[in-house]
Amino acid sequence: MKGRDNMERTSHISELRKIIAMERSNGRKIALIPTMGYLHRGHLALVEQAKQTGAFIVVSIFVNPLQFGPNEDYENYPRDFDRDANLVKDAGVDALFHPTVEEMYPRPIVTYVEVGQLDTVLCGAKRPGHFRGVTTVVSKLFHIIQPDLALFGQKDYQQYLIVKRMVNDLNLPIEVCPVAIVREEDGLAISSRNVFLTLEQRHEAKVLSQSLTAAETFLRSGERSARKLEKQVRDIISGNCHGIIDYVEVRDAGDLSEVTMIEGPVLIALAVKFGSTRLIDNKLVEVDPHD
Amino acid sequence: MKGRDNMERTSHISELRKIIAMERSNGRKIALIPTMGYLHRGHLALVEQAKQTGAFIVVSIFVNPLQFGPNEDYENYPRDFDRDANLVKDAGVDALFHPTVEEMYPRPIVTYVEVGQLDTVLCGAKRPGHFRGVTTVVSKLFHIIQPDLALFGQKDYQQYLIVKRMVNDLNLPIEVCPVAIVREEDGLAISSRNVFLTLEQRHEAKVLSQSLTAAETFLRSGERSARKLEKQVRDIISGNCHGIIDYVEVRDAGDLSEVTMIEGPVLIALAVKFGSTRLIDNKLVEVDPHD
Repeated sequence: MKGRDNMERTSHISELRKIIAMERSNGRKIALIPTMGYLHRGHLALVEQAKQTGAFIVVSIFVNPLQFGPNEDYENYPRDFDRDANLVKDAGVDALFHPTVEEMYPRPIVTYVEVGQLDTVLCGAKRPGHFRGVTTVVSKLFHIIQPDLALFGQKDYQQYLIVKRMVNDLNLPIEVCPVAIVREEDGLAISSRNVFLTLEQRHEAKVLSQSLTAAETFLRSGERSARKLEKQVRDIISGNCHGIIDYVEVRDAGDLSEVTMIEGPVLIALAVKFGSTRLIDNKLVEVDPHD
Repeated sequence: MKGRDNMERTSHISELRKIIAMERSNGRKIALIPTMGYLHRGHLALVEQAKQTGAFIVVSIFVNPLQFGPNEDYENYPRDFDRDANLVKDAGVDALFHPTVEEMYPRPIVTYVEVGQLDTVLCGAKRPGHFRGVTTVVSKLFHIIQPDLALFGQKDYQQYLIVKRMVNDLNLPIEVCPVAIVREEDGLAISSRNVFLTLEQRHEAKVLSQSLTAAETFLRSGERSARKLEKQVRDIISGNCHGIIDYVEVRDAGDLSEVTMIEGPVLIALAVKFGSTRLIDNKLVEVDPHD
């Protein structure tokens, strides 16, 4: 048997709440995997990790307009609901929640949940309001589903950290679990947006993960200057593809604060635009301070 | 028997969660009454209303630094914990939660919950950041206690509306219940801050409720101009006390939007300073559009 035959599906908050209340009354823990759909192996890795816990797994699919800027790709964000529904069913997901925009925002929302500091750097600096849109919709999903755990992919490491900080600051009784980046064979981090790449861009895009691997090697071989590492990554990207660098930054892995001399765990993060397609990738590196 | 002998008391989030989980597993509904302590008959009216529901009643006492401005009365806000504990015990409250500042904010909070529009008028215009502090701490309490219902006094009508809007916008599964203002015999709305009034100020302060009653009379007798009503209230206050008017405003009772000609339910709200003591009061008036 590939998956379960009886995956619950609903686009209604009230129906989802009933399904979950029933499972909870049977003593099941609830796991939430919030997605924007157009699912890929990265999402399926989240499902696999959730299955290990024995929890009742809810996947939400909602392309959240609140987290797209006015000039971003909300309208064109890729969507294929039928394919997604089959994928999660085959993967053994227990319930699929796919609300409409009207169900999530029945009237103009005026309430926002905002995580300061962490949201003003990296992607937050380039996409004003983006993380506020993420934390607001994730809050809504947390209140609707009241999961015991929620899983987030580390490709969006900043998003994971922000959600984790929100949960801690606001005392949400939820465990936020990171899941490692899943990559194509040539190293490209899997993303719903990869579908927009031309063949040439797709070929060139492998340089992103290669530049991160190179940076890790420099770091492990003794380089401790964050600025020098950033320059090395930039040089590798600029020299090997037509992508336009949005940012390349080495930051503290715990709170994304600025780092000059690397002495603890760091995040090496980048965003590069191939035409109108913006790709992100990152690598967490822990260095031994005694090296 | 005046109250229950076995009121639970804790200053620890984890212990409170256990107490509540136990009650919930027995099928009890949970009611939350968030307060800043220095309890009075207004708070006890909230307890009485909560008791009608049969819920397990949790009162929180926490003077929340986040909702006080730098020049406001956080340090001097009146506190008398022992008296409060006896009051709620005698009133039949089931659990008293009285966390320290360190328990609620173990590290600097960077996450805020903010209700736009509603928080920029009336008290929000005069106390920047105040309602953001309120909604953030109320979110935390909601996540810690996960109540089925939460009760708020209508003296802070704007606060009640803001919390209600937050709950709706963020899909919190909580019923927000308003409780009518409790007044002294001469009409003064009961408030923890009344203790700061001198005898003369206390005597004069009765003009606040009298001005609201007069406004209601003008309104019921046909006056439909919001500006004229405001002027009448201001004139009554200025002519009968030494208080300094912070604001007097007639606004839509549903969303606090501006009103020129009164055609539906309105809130007549005021804030007046007696020395350094700022008092608020309000009256909700529904008019028959066919009058």
